[in-house]
Amino acid sequence: MAKTKHLIGQRHENEVAILKRFGENLRKIRENRELSQEEVAYQTGFSRSYYTEVETGKRNISLLNILKISFFLKVELDELIKVKDCSI
Amino acid sequence: MAKTKHLIGQRHENEVAILKRFGENLRKIRENRELSQEEVAYQTGFSRSYYTEVETGKRNISLLNILKISFFLKVELDELIKVKDCSI
Repeated sequence: MAKTKHLIGQRHENEVAILKRFGENLRKIRENRELSQEEVAYQTGFSRSYYTEVETGKRNISLLNILKISFFLKVELDELIKVKDCSI
Repeated sequence: MAKTKHLIGQRHENEVAILKRFGENLRKIRENRELSQEEVAYQTGFSRSYYTEVETGKRNISLLNILKISFFLKVELDELIKVKDCSI
C-alpha cells in the first residue's frame, strides 16, 4: 500500500488518468472475453498482483508487456490503449 | 555498455526483435519529420541518451513514454508500434 501511494505520488495527474483509462479498457476487454484476472495473468506470465495493478492503473506498463496482453487477448493496440482524449 | 549488454542479455530473442523494430519505426518517423534525436528528446522531456537507447531498441519503453512520443510526433500508435509480424 505504501509502495503504491509512493508510485502514484510521483506521477502527474494526467499520467495517472491515462494509466487508469488503460486499466479500465483492459478490464472491459477481459470481461467481454469472460476471462478472470488469474487466467490472463497466468497466460501472459505475469503475477496476479502485477496484473491487478495494471488493471487498476497503478503500473506504467512496458511495451513488451502491452504486446503480451494484446497478443493474448487478440486486441488491437488502438482499442487497448484508446486514451486519445487524455493529455500528457 | 556493460549495462546495455546486461539488459539485452535478460531478454528473449523475440523481445529484442520487437524493441529493435519499434526503435526503427520511431527513427523513420522522426527522420520523415526532419527532426533530430536531440529535438525529440528535448520536447518529450527525455535525456538524449535515453532517447537514443529507445531508437536503438535497448529500452523496453513504458506506456506513458510511448504516448509522449506519439503525441509529440502526431503519429498513431499502430503506426509507431507496428510489430504485428513479430511473435512474443
